[in-house]
Amino acid sequence: MDYSLTAGGKRLRPVLCLAAADAVGGDRALAMPASCALEFIHTYSLIHDDLPAMDNDSLRRGRPTLHVVAGDGMAILAGDGLLTEAFALLARAPASADPTIVARKLRVVGVIADAAGAAGMVGGQATDLACTIADPTGRLAPPLDAEEVRLMHARKTGALIRAAAVSGAIMGGAEEATIGRIDAAATEFGLAFQIVDDILDVEGVSTQLGKTPGKDAAAGKPTYPALYGLAAARQMAAACLARAEDHLRTAGLADSWLMEIGRWIVHRSN
Amino acid sequence: MDYSLTAGGKRLRPVLCLAAADAVGGDRALAMPASCALEFIHTYSLIHDDLPAMDNDSLRRGRPTLHVVAGDGMAILAGDGLLTEAFALLARAPASADPTIVARKLRVVGVIADAAGAAGMVGGQATDLACTIADPTGRLAPPLDAEEVRLMHARKTGALIRAAAVSGAIMGGAEEATIGRIDAAATEFGLAFQIVDDILDVEGVSTQLGKTPGKDAAAGKPTYPALYGLAAARQMAAACLARAEDHLRTAGLADSWLMEIGRWIVHRSN
Repeated sequence: MDYSLTAGGKRLRPVLCLAAADAVGGDRALAMPASCALEFIHTYSLIHDDLPAMDNDSLRRGRPTLHVVAGDGMAILAGDGLLTEAFALLARAPASADPTIVARKLRVVGVIADAAGAAGMVGGQATDLACTIADPTGRLAPPLDAEEVRLMHARKTGALIRAAAVSGAIMGGAEEATIGRIDAAATEFGLAFQIVDDILDVEGVSTQLGKTPGKDAAAGKPTYPALYGLAAARQMAAACLARAEDHLRTAGLADSWLMEIGRWIVHRSN
Repeated sequence: MDYSLTAGGKRLRPVLCLAAADAVGGDRALAMPASCALEFIHTYSLIHDDLPAMDNDSLRRGRPTLHVVAGDGMAILAGDGLLTEAFALLARAPASADPTIVARKLRVVGVIADAAGAAGMVGGQATDLACTIADPTGRLAPPLDAEEVRLMHARKTGALIRAAAVSGAIMGGAEEATIGRIDAAATEFGLAFQIVDDILDVEGVSTQLGKTPGKDAAAGKPTYPALYGLAAARQMAAACLARAEDHLRTAGLADSWLMEIGRWIVHRSN
């Protein structure tokens, strides 16, 4: 668990969570446990996705993947442990008997579990897997069309990014309308993130990415550049950013650090 | 997820949870979501433990294991999904804005996550795995002594059994002293359960057990009959039951259905 958690990474989800709490004028410390829990969950998902039974990747965050150094069984357990500890942390921290804080914490447990579960991240990964690796009877799901690809990514990657911003807003004490706007903006961030990820996978070099580049294309996965071409994919990411800015402007948050993170998502190089 | 959840099984953890809520005079309906969440978590642990990278078992609850019918990757994801949905359910249900119920629900999230995580079930399984399968460098942890075996089982099996009874008591609105007594009794139930499991593994036949018998002994795992002999192991299970009855008697619960479940644990044949 420690090996994978301390391997670095962008820490996008924790930062989004804290930025959302900041943006709504909340106490960042109240959002810190959710912020950490989100990184636990993201890290567990990388450990499991990298297993030979799934993406079979040997490099992640610039290091050998966990199953390479600890074995498949221990990697599965480390992922299970990180996922479980995320909820232990959400239940425990921030320590407070204040009914308002207790209610926010329980709501965040639900938001994060829904985003990480079968309707979200795990479901998206299952769709991806079904199209990539044949089941024991030799069946492989048919290739996804463009709309199915969007939905698969919305679940696999987008749901947890949304949950990060939303749980920050909840812990920060935002009003419902503001939570809704932040959710809408984060939905655009999530889509932009995936599009840019696909572009970087085409363009990237291993040392910058910290993972094996060109892997999705080689596996015949339907990436945005493959579906639409590189130039159109870049325009799509820019359009996501513009829509996100509209949502945040409506909530009076266009000048927030949250919006800066959105800009970084689109313009990043790793 | 459905394949493994509907394969039957003893439903010991859900029943313990409901029996504890009943015993303390609580509303059984309030404990039902926790009861289901516990079975989700137990089922996920079976799916992952049965994988080729861990116990490599092909029969469970009288059916082919999930990875045999759906592949390793999908089995890993089904387990991940069940674990996550357990917490989604705990956050959502029972639906209530009553601060007392909200606080109980959040407390149960913590109790169950602690029991299922690295300090509990996942940690126990990791200890078991480290002694069974060499890591990629060929290292195998040294065999456990009797006290280490007890501790490994207390984490791997006992922690979730305790959490089942404790969360039922919490949702049922029990006083702290009563929760403590129920926890102490369930600790004895958990140890008895493991001892009897080992005895049945020696004596059992596949059709009754719904899993492959003699497997632990064949794998050289340190079982209670192997460590102490069959007769002494039976006496140890009976002693657990007597201690559990003392704890429940102190709480005025010796005549509860909870105690009946303890008797079943020791006298069961599957």
